[in-house]
Amino acid sequence: MDDRIELWNELAAQIAVDSIRATTAAGSGHPSSSMSCAHLLAVLFADHLRTDVQDPKNPANDRFVMSKGHAGPALYAGLKAIGAIGDEQLLSLRKMGSPVQGHPVPLPEMPWIDVATGSLGQGLAIGLGMALAMRIDNAPARAWVLLGDSEAAEGSVWEAMEAASFHGAANVTAILDLNRLGQRGPTMHQWNGDVFRVRAEAFGWTATQIDGHDVRQIDRAYRDAAESDRPTLVIARTEKGHGVSFISDAPGWHGKPIPADREQEAIEELGGPRDLRITPPRPPDFKPTQNRELSPTPAPSYESAVATRKAFGESLAWLAGHRPDLIVLDGEVGNSTYTEDVLAVAPERFIEMYIAEQCMIGVQVGMQALGKTVFAATFGAFMTRAFDQIRMGVVSRANLRLSGSHAGVSIGEDGPSQMAVEDLAMFRALHGSTVLYPADGASTVKLVAAMCELEGVSYLRTTREATAPLYGADDDFPVGGSKTLARGEDDAVTLIGAGVTLHQCLAAREALAADGVSARVIDCYTVKPIDAATLRSALDDTNVIVVVEDHRVEGGLGDAVLDALAGTGPLRGTVVKLGVAALPGSGTAEELRAWAGIDAASIAARAKEAIGRP
Amino acid sequence: MDDRIELWNELAAQIAVDSIRATTAAGSGHPSSSMSCAHLLAVLFADHLRTDVQDPKNPANDRFVMSKGHAGPALYAGLKAIGAIGDEQLLSLRKMGSPVQGHPVPLPEMPWIDVATGSLGQGLAIGLGMALAMRIDNAPARAWVLLGDSEAAEGSVWEAMEAASFHGAANVTAILDLNRLGQRGPTMHQWNGDVFRVRAEAFGWTATQIDGHDVRQIDRAYRDAAESDRPTLVIARTEKGHGVSFISDAPGWHGKPIPADREQEAIEELGGPRDLRITPPRPPDFKPTQNRELSPTPAPSYESAVATRKAFGESLAWLAGHRPDLIVLDGEVGNSTYTEDVLAVAPERFIEMYIAEQCMIGVQVGMQALGKTVFAATFGAFMTRAFDQIRMGVVSRANLRLSGSHAGVSIGEDGPSQMAVEDLAMFRALHGSTVLYPADGASTVKLVAAMCELEGVSYLRTTREATAPLYGADDDFPVGGSKTLARGEDDAVTLIGAGVTLHQCLAAREALAADGVSARVIDCYTVKPIDAATLRSALDDTNVIVVVEDHRVEGGLGDAVLDALAGTGPLRGTVVKLGVAALPGSGTAEELRAWAGIDAASIAARAKEAIGRP
Repeated sequence: MDDRIELWNELAAQIAVDSIRATTAAGSGHPSSSMSCAHLLAVLFADHLRTDVQDPKNPANDRFVMSKGHAGPALYAGLKAIGAIGDEQLLSLRKMGSPVQGHPVPLPEMPWIDVATGSLGQGLAIGLGMALAMRIDNAPARAWVLLGDSEAAEGSVWEAMEAASFHGAANVTAILDLNRLGQRGPTMHQWNGDVFRVRAEAFGWTATQIDGHDVRQIDRAYRDAAESDRPTLVIARTEKGHGVSFISDAPGWHGKPIPADREQEAIEELGGPRDLRITPPRPPDFKPTQNRELSPTPAPSYESAVATRKAFGESLAWLAGHRPDLIVLDGEVGNSTYTEDVLAVAPERFIEMYIAEQCMIGVQVGMQALGKTVFAATFGAFMTRAFDQIRMGVVSRANLRLSGSHAGVSIGEDGPSQMAVEDLAMFRALHGSTVLYPADGASTVKLVAAMCELEGVSYLRTTREATAPLYGADDDFPVGGSKTLARGEDDAVTLIGAGVTLHQCLAAREALAADGVSARVIDCYTVKPIDAATLRSALDDTNVIVVVEDHRVEGGLGDAVLDALAGTGPLRGTVVKLGVAALPGSGTAEELRAWAGIDAASIAARAKEAIGRP
Repeated sequence: MDDRIELWNELAAQIAVDSIRATTAAGSGHPSSSMSCAHLLAVLFADHLRTDVQDPKNPANDRFVMSKGHAGPALYAGLKAIGAIGDEQLLSLRKMGSPVQGHPVPLPEMPWIDVATGSLGQGLAIGLGMALAMRIDNAPARAWVLLGDSEAAEGSVWEAMEAASFHGAANVTAILDLNRLGQRGPTMHQWNGDVFRVRAEAFGWTATQIDGHDVRQIDRAYRDAAESDRPTLVIARTEKGHGVSFISDAPGWHGKPIPADREQEAIEELGGPRDLRITPPRPPDFKPTQNRELSPTPAPSYESAVATRKAFGESLAWLAGHRPDLIVLDGEVGNSTYTEDVLAVAPERFIEMYIAEQCMIGVQVGMQALGKTVFAATFGAFMTRAFDQIRMGVVSRANLRLSGSHAGVSIGEDGPSQMAVEDLAMFRALHGSTVLYPADGASTVKLVAAMCELEGVSYLRTTREATAPLYGADDDFPVGGSKTLARGEDDAVTLIGAGVTLHQCLAAREALAADGVSARVIDCYTVKPIDAATLRSALDDTNVIVVVEDHRVEGGLGDAVLDALAGTGPLRGTVVKLGVAALPGSGTAEELRAWAGIDAASIAARAKEAIGRP
């Protein structure tokens, strides 16, 4: 035991020293926040985090999430100690092109990091997602999450605390680095660990308070955590900048490297540099197993009108019967998004996350990091609640398959709080995202299936009301494509819609035809990446485009069309954007579409105006 | 007392009956969720909510927030009982054009409603903001918030719980309508009120458990709450659909009106319709007072380079010295956004909200509802955390003055988790929003001052690094305008930038001039509403526009320029959009701008390519 104590303390000193070396070399970063957790990481990496360093994606591995991402240097120092990275790489911290980024980011050359952190309060839900995925696979593994005390002010932490105990995730251990100081000054509760103990217990956790620089106490707490029948919070009282007298527990040292001319002094206080290498405990031999046979059913098909949200849920249930990796998360609206249809096919792979969208997305990020194909759904309006988690999911290179129902003013009477009218703008702005918006049942089925194979964030926007069938079960809907539903030799205008507005465009075409105007109609079922070539041809052919969306006029389909046209050469012609340009209230779907000027009559009128045919 | 008990019970029955009548007439809505809180509202409106119905904005009034917005019918029934609206208006629920919308919305004709609700978990922070504003004015008033039990899963509720106790807001009372059933089925904790009592106490609140249909217990709990030296949570065990046997505590009745053919039966079970009118308790006579004299200082001015985030904070400190209504909320980064400069001028009007952005925006919504001019600031990236709150702020017709610092890849080494690259898309998509992006100190000062007078959501994007002065203290920056910084007779191309990219455009202009190419340069300091006429002239004059932004290529300045051009007539010419089109990592600001292709060299090269001058 004394040997281990010495090792842990030496390793902690090495992590502190390496954190200083890396940040001083970088000229920026957070050494003091790294040093407060050096002992916590040392004991964890040396004796508790069961991981095969050569096989970081082994399903028997424990997983570690550095929720306080600004303490990345401590994590990198730990990765160096276990032989994952070398000293040269450590010292490339924050340099252009280095995988050792300012905050942890998972990259092909950095497979020991599963998810990106740095926007605070997100790591616990991610760890919970990992733990739940482990449980689905019957894996004997644990998720360990290091939390900062400042980030405990984020409600997302408490969503995850609640969900972890509700779901009985005893294989989650959270370690709270209670270092008393935030960015601006003292945290709300400083070293009052009792506050966190009482809260954690009230949220159904086991909680224990320790001195976060006493390795024996740390080891005991981790051992106890592994044996608890509940998730455990280890509340570790620490000092920011521990071990270096002139920054220890001192204000004004958040996010500041030790200046080069004081680096030596600081390192010497810590006993100088070390070069310890350790081997973390090996995970047990293990292969994932499933608790239930698959029960495949045929793909849904639709002869008559169906709401795309319903087709979405039925498609998920179909896919869940075929794919053991498919998991569905619900934001307590599964009877509206129809995700609860999955319950009949694979009950253990339908997880009710209740009304806690941030936690839902965090769990999704954690599960996909363990190789699961995870869908999450709620009303499109409420996806905004998790924008930061989704944005960070992009940095995590996460495959997030999302669906938002109740799009646009077409939901009708419930009013603007429930209407998604900014969701296309939100999802379109994300790097590498795919934005899909089907107009009928058949296209929904194909697009949901396609989402299972997509990388990055994909978003399927669905409609509350039933829409008429436009396509057959044999039609294909490649991502990035479009469908031209009507086309003539003398088309005077092109009408572009998606989802519910496509049906309005088709009706407008009828009205225009009655007035002797031939209109092309394009279904932009992929808003991103958009079918630029088809749009460019339409502009070249007809000289006038009217694009119609049940969404704000900014950032959505209309802007995507303009962007595609600008990106394919000089502009020549007229583009009329119709969308929601005022603040809606309650009303029927028809009344509200007319009010917004996105119904068939408005489209026909604006088209005639644009081509000068009054 | 017996008289009051009879009155309260009769009033509760009336609220239940009116909730049924309104939703059955509408053919949609949430009667069962309204009926569970009928007694809670009856006692509150009759004897506790001190309010002058004729003067709903009286600063001595208590305020009520219906956080579970789907129970709007109960609120409308209460407003009818106090004489604010008539029966005909009540029965216009959910009809097109009616102010009695599906979820509560504040409108000029509905001044008894202060804020919109309907996206769950947002009301408590709003109530806290009201309570804190009351305290700043030394008002003897209270905020009352009715919470649903499903929404208690939202972390935003626990952020507000923590902030309320931390800030000692004893004048907040939250009433938890513990009706056991959510939308899909039972809630996590059903009728286990102990869970909420223990959690509330752990979060520093007084908590009490009552039978939510026993008016005597309700009255006692409200009386105790008014005397507590802490915020109080009244945990009221209730039944969804209480009083009507066939829907009471029954699954499958969420969000469903009672069918017309059973309406009479339901109403008769409740004792038939009533037409009680009550007068709520009068608020005391009161005029707001301030605890501190103003200490006006001159406006900041800049002769040399300054970070616009610093100019922002210094402008706030200047304005706080002149305006007693100005309040600043910080997300624990006030030393980065420089909002903490306000501390020196008006310490009681700088409020540290810690790292809880959702609560920060909720508090802002509540404060502005009481007439305050409130700024909130954090890193632009972390504004995404509060997108749902900001979106709902639009529905609340709230005046939210926001600033996001650390915009774009130009923050450098900290990496993508800290980079705002989707913020312009988010804010631009909001109805009625104003999006500002100054490039130097002088323009920042003017724009921050202008924000004090704007309606709706306004957003100021600021830069981490210092930028050179471009303007003088006498220059004006009208919202919706732009500045043409360079213009010649033979301009071959127009370069459009804002913020940090404007400086790159100016440098690119120099490079182009050296190659004999004359470039116009426009500062789009207002991204929305954008100066469409100037942009149209530029396209007409130069035929080629290169628009450059340190933001994703979707949804930001580039799309705004295209939108403006499309909206001002037929398109003719070339628009090249430069922005962040891949996923950044760490690096220096210069390296990252070059990597993204938004630095001066890239701009000059793309401009030459676009005009065919290799």
